[in-house]
Amino acid sequence: MNTIGHLFRLTSFGESHGKGIGGVIDGFPAGIDIDTAFLQGELARRRPGQSPLTTNRQEADELEILSGIYDGKSTGCPIGFLVRNSNQHSSDYAELEDLFRPSHADYTYYEKYGIRDHRGGGRSSARETVARCVAGAFAKLALRQKGITIQAYTAQVGDIALDKDYRKYDLSLVESNDVRCPDPEKARQMARVIQEVKAEGDTIGGIITCVIKGTPAGLGEPVFGKLHAELGKAMLSINAAKGFEYGAGFAGAGMKGSEQNDTFIPDGKGGITTAANHSGGIQGGISNGQDIYFNVAFKPVATILKEQSTVNRKGEAITFKAKGRHDPCVLPRAVPIVESMAAIIILDNYLQYRARYQF
Amino acid sequence: MNTIGHLFRLTSFGESHGKGIGGVIDGFPAGIDIDTAFLQGELARRRPGQSPLTTNRQEADELEILSGIYDGKSTGCPIGFLVRNSNQHSSDYAELEDLFRPSHADYTYYEKYGIRDHRGGGRSSARETVARCVAGAFAKLALRQKGITIQAYTAQVGDIALDKDYRKYDLSLVESNDVRCPDPEKARQMARVIQEVKAEGDTIGGIITCVIKGTPAGLGEPVFGKLHAELGKAMLSINAAKGFEYGAGFAGAGMKGSEQNDTFIPDGKGGITTAANHSGGIQGGISNGQDIYFNVAFKPVATILKEQSTVNRKGEAITFKAKGRHDPCVLPRAVPIVESMAAIIILDNYLQYRARYQF
Amino acid sequence: MNTIGHLFRLTSFGESHGKGIGGVIDGFPAGIDIDTAFLQGELARRRPGQSPLTTNRQEADELEILSGIYDGKSTGCPIGFLVRNSNQHSSDYAELEDLFRPSHADYTYYEKYGIRDHRGGGRSSARETVARCVAGAFAKLALRQKGITIQAYTAQVGDIALDKDYRKYDLSLVESNDVRCPDPEKARQMARVIQEVKAEGDTIGGIITCVIKGTPAGLGEPVFGKLHAELGKAMLSINAAKGFEYGAGFAGAGMKGSEQNDTFIPDGKGGITTAANHSGGIQGGISNGQDIYFNVAFKPVATILKEQSTVNRKGEAITFKAKGRHDPCVLPRAVPIVESMAAIIILDNYLQYRARYQF
Amino acid sequence: MNTIGHLFRLTSFGESHGKGIGGVIDGFPAGIDIDTAFLQGELARRRPGQSPLTTNRQEADELEILSGIYDGKSTGCPIGFLVRNSNQHSSDYAELEDLFRPSHADYTYYEKYGIRDHRGGGRSSARETVARCVAGAFAKLALRQKGITIQAYTAQVGDIALDKDYRKYDLSLVESNDVRCPDPEKARQMARVIQEVKAEGDTIGGIITCVIKGTPAGLGEPVFGKLHAELGKAMLSINAAKGFEYGAGFAGAGMKGSEQNDTFIPDGKGGITTAANHSGGIQGGISNGQDIYFNVAFKPVATILKEQSTVNRKGEAITFKAKGRHDPCVLPRAVPIVESMAAIIILDNYLQYRARYQF
Repeated sequence: MNTIGHLFRLTSFGESHGKGIGGVIDGFPAGIDIDTAFLQGELARRRPGQSPLTTNRQEADELEILSGIYDGKSTGCPIGFLVRNSNQHSSDYAELEDLFRPSHADYTYYEKYGIRDHRGGGRSSARETVARCVAGAFAKLALRQKGITIQAYTAQVGDIALDKDYRKYDLSLVESNDVRCPDPEKARQMARVIQEVKAEGDTIGGIITCVIKGTPAGLGEPVFGKLHAELGKAMLSINAAKGFEYGAGFAGAGMKGSEQNDTFIPDGKGGITTAANHSGGIQGGISNGQDIYFNVAFKPVATILKEQSTVNRKGEAITFKAKGRHDPCVLPRAVPIVESMAAIIILDNYLQYRARYQF
Repeated sequence: MNTIGHLFRLTSFGESHGKGIGGVIDGFPAGIDIDTAFLQGELARRRPGQSPLTTNRQEADELEILSGIYDGKSTGCPIGFLVRNSNQHSSDYAELEDLFRPSHADYTYYEKYGIRDHRGGGRSSARETVARCVAGAFAKLALRQKGITIQAYTAQVGDIALDKDYRKYDLSLVESNDVRCPDPEKARQMARVIQEVKAEGDTIGGIITCVIKGTPAGLGEPVFGKLHAELGKAMLSINAAKGFEYGAGFAGAGMKGSEQNDTFIPDGKGGITTAANHSGGIQGGISNGQDIYFNVAFKPVATILKEQSTVNRKGEAITFKAKGRHDPCVLPRAVPIVESMAAIIILDNYLQYRARYQF
Repeated sequence: MNTIGHLFRLTSFGESHGKGIGGVIDGFPAGIDIDTAFLQGELARRRPGQSPLTTNRQEADELEILSGIYDGKSTGCPIGFLVRNSNQHSSDYAELEDLFRPSHADYTYYEKYGIRDHRGGGRSSARETVARCVAGAFAKLALRQKGITIQAYTAQVGDIALDKDYRKYDLSLVESNDVRCPDPEKARQMARVIQEVKAEGDTIGGIITCVIKGTPAGLGEPVFGKLHAELGKAMLSINAAKGFEYGAGFAGAGMKGSEQNDTFIPDGKGGITTAANHSGGIQGGISNGQDIYFNVAFKPVATILKEQSTVNRKGEAITFKAKGRHDPCVLPRAVPIVESMAAIIILDNYLQYRARYQF
Repeated sequence: MNTIGHLFRLTSFGESHGKGIGGVIDGFPAGIDIDTAFLQGELARRRPGQSPLTTNRQEADELEILSGIYDGKSTGCPIGFLVRNSNQHSSDYAELEDLFRPSHADYTYYEKYGIRDHRGGGRSSARETVARCVAGAFAKLALRQKGITIQAYTAQVGDIALDKDYRKYDLSLVESNDVRCPDPEKARQMARVIQEVKAEGDTIGGIITCVIKGTPAGLGEPVFGKLHAELGKAMLSINAAKGFEYGAGFAGAGMKGSEQNDTFIPDGKGGITTAANHSGGIQGGISNGQDIYFNVAFKPVATILKEQSTVNRKGEAITFKAKGRHDPCVLPRAVPIVESMAAIIILDNYLQYRARYQF
């Protein structure tokens, strides 16, 4: 299932060490101005080698749009695109052909398909997220016409965590540091943690928070297509994601109804707002017009540069040590990926909403 | 979007105070023996009024199967079913027609559809989960033929939480207490918390853990249909769910790769197992044959029997106090719902796996 | 796959001799006035026993709506419905349990599922089309708000065929005779043919034409979701349908481009029309605002009251003679079914069109 | 909707005068040997310029596979592919920018999207079928492992029609002439008709017959996913297709049940066969193991090299005369396209069948 979305759909393809990563964006509205510098800029936010905190692999990640644009505007026809791979060292993976790396997808792909492209993880590599960022960038172009903006940031790395909620930070600072954290001091601490684990040949996990502003009330398709369920699925489909929560989330499990309930109040402009926003902008699976916010937990990268035990294809216990160029922490580069998946889901739901609203 | 699943699909309908809750189960394999006592028993696990910890509404919840069964076996044709409502007090809701209850779906349904059935929350009521339990019970019948079992339990209520992982408990004890917690002492503490908040007219949230045993390696459809992403979506679509995590989950965000990685080891029977199972039985979105386990966070029930502030349809600030019969805590009754959604997703993925496996 | 449609969806269930036929209509817009007399009237057009030309089975076909309506209007929530079976003579089918009737689905269901409900054809019975007529009637309610109307009629029975195109007939006459043919003289001839084959214990096929007026230009989703492809699929899914053609259709295969091309001309009101309409109102898979029209071929009913040869489950050659009450010709009762499937497809495409139009 | 299929899916993109035509094939089983010469050969069967009967445009149509293959075998991961355009003369279309060609999609695309790529018809061009042939060729590779073969041929051009059914011809002769007709004498007559209309600057329609052999009983998903309904949709989605019929089809509308019914007889090998095959190998929407056969009607190509009347964007009546290199008759090149769409549908249904068969 390499397609996500109902009315706005991304179908992706490509492997880490194949010819490239690409996809087809279907259902994009016609007549949208295509800002190619913005698209390429979004890819740059995800690009390896962008800072000392990421892998030093250098991928140009040049986006070639193959269809669906005419005269600088979207035509309503499917947008094919391709980002060719350029800087693979497949030889780094030669000795991995016969073993199953711990916490990677080597074993499960082999069991499911009976064959696998072991080079760089093949299809299971996070390089696949290139396609998500392309589609997400397109979705952002459409959403900003409607006043909808999406901003994610790194909220935790290892045990360094932001202790306040997103409203307490200046989110315009997110891009001002390599970690993509809106608190400059915490960003420095997180960067230090990442460099420490990198020096050890180890890796570290973390949490990303994402905030969506400007959605109208009414997005989301109960009961199985609740907006947060669609967002959750999209986030959990990102490599290394292990958890999703929105609004009060897991912490809210310990609260009473009288504490967590969001009192409605007049907004002074003839509309309605909520005193708090424990609902995370979604009630009964439908956006209520308040900010939507959620967290995504990421595990540490499974590839570490330390000796590990595992088994080979014959089922024999062996040890091995990975080579190659790997991220010590995915969080900084995962920020644009989280935003992209959010943009895909929000645009898809916006189109579904338009289909029936005030028929 | 009142349908979930690809090859095994549930389409549901019905409102809290309408004629009933029903649905269509499509894609169920032919030739499965239909144990109707089991089906009715699963509904009984979800039924209101089953213990002092739940609402004292009494719903018979009698299942009428309308099609798809012949001679006690499934025919491969769609299974229509209906559970009629019987014990509604719609008058309890009369004064709610013009106001928006805090943290309910009243406001968002009204904004989305321009009309709503205010009685008991209409379609947004958790009464809708009757259909999930019916479909889940059917799915369990098919899965048990393949040796796959699913068991959920209450792991936290308010601030009373199990402190050990599922392997440390005897899960056969889950049904031995009203809370559905495998630790009898914790169950007593949780029951006490529920009764305290009930006495206050308040409500409380919690966490459910679910464990799936016996899946073969190979279930899950990368990249957007990862098994945990499908499970996450299904869980988040349950009323009051606010978070989902699998394996090491959010806690794993603070771990290093060297700590979280699951070392593969020979299982002594010619196969492979893992030393730990931080992966939660899923790697790269595909089951690896180990136990699958995950947590779902539930917020406290939004209906409390205390006076609350809100606004009415005209946007005026008002106060109100809910009447009616409500659960102080959804956790005990949510246990079979979580299992049901898991069963639906696992059967759906099992069928997809069969479609292409060893072609 | 018992679901049809993307944004407007019907999921159906039920067998000929089971408890009834029902379904779930999902994605119906909110706020539509539900005219229940109209809904029941549409069912009456399909009902057996309505004239001497149809089977004399008497089914009340009372529609029970189970959800999705409040205060006489649609709520945007799924509409569950049920029409209970009432007049089955299952004993008529007892001897069929072990044999495969020629040109029925007995053999294929048995091979596919390993089990079948032989009574009245079970799920393969045309009684299933009750659900189509219910959903179609709902769709018509929404479409008429947009000025879109759908009218089908019997154009051929056996070798009695209308020789002019739909524009030459007064379609308001369709319901004035039992055959549902707009040419009263041809209708009489067709009725005679039907009564003759009925007297012989035989059956006869025919062709239905359907005309859709009032669609805006722009419905249809290229390239695989072309409007005529969706219509074709919907028509071919009706029991006994063997062919579909739109516009010039099969006859156009013998024409030259210079003959078949539809010259565009100004419509005198600032818009555009076509001189002829060989395109059948659809160009490149998208409606052009002209009338949409198409033909559907139906084979003769497979159940005849003559002795036939076949084989039994053991593969032995046998003879048998069907009992029971059967239609000598499906055409008159298929007219509302064709309209219903057209209404479902047009509403579904109308919603898809709204989703992105002039974003 | 640029995706077709459920478990085996093609998503395509590209325009006539854009960078190329490509797509993503998803759900292809793993471990299939990929015969690239066969794939390229299938494209050659569709290629323009292959004979005097087709357009003399020369497109190399070189297939680049971008993913999903490793070591000469499919990996189960999505197969991205691209065929770059090479021989466009966009200037031939310059004067078409402001007018709507009769019976083309110019007007409808403009109305639907508000913008269109007028060069060569853009997305509505039959060049899009390149992607269908690539996916169809892959599907054939999988199907031939299961003994399923698909053969189409030209059965009618203008008023020259084969007068016998497919069993009377030697289908191995299809590729022996430029028309792709198994009757060499009729092929010569058809070729003459095509050359005559070409000389006039006109075009001509026709009919293609397709025969599928070797399917097991059991393919097809009632009730809305009947095998012939899926085949019909797929065929009608091909450019210029105007009709579809299977088995006895439209001619069968004039037959009696006693004539059209397919008597089952023992096949002498312990199985069952039918005396005739008016059912076209499909009963109740499910394959019965007999040959599946159907016809597809194609209209004449809309681009003729004669002066025609039409209107421009301002709604003014004008005349114009098309330039460029166009097919006088699509039939010869449509034969592999029909086969490809059949292969896609059959493989998709084969996978669905495997999912649940003998669970």
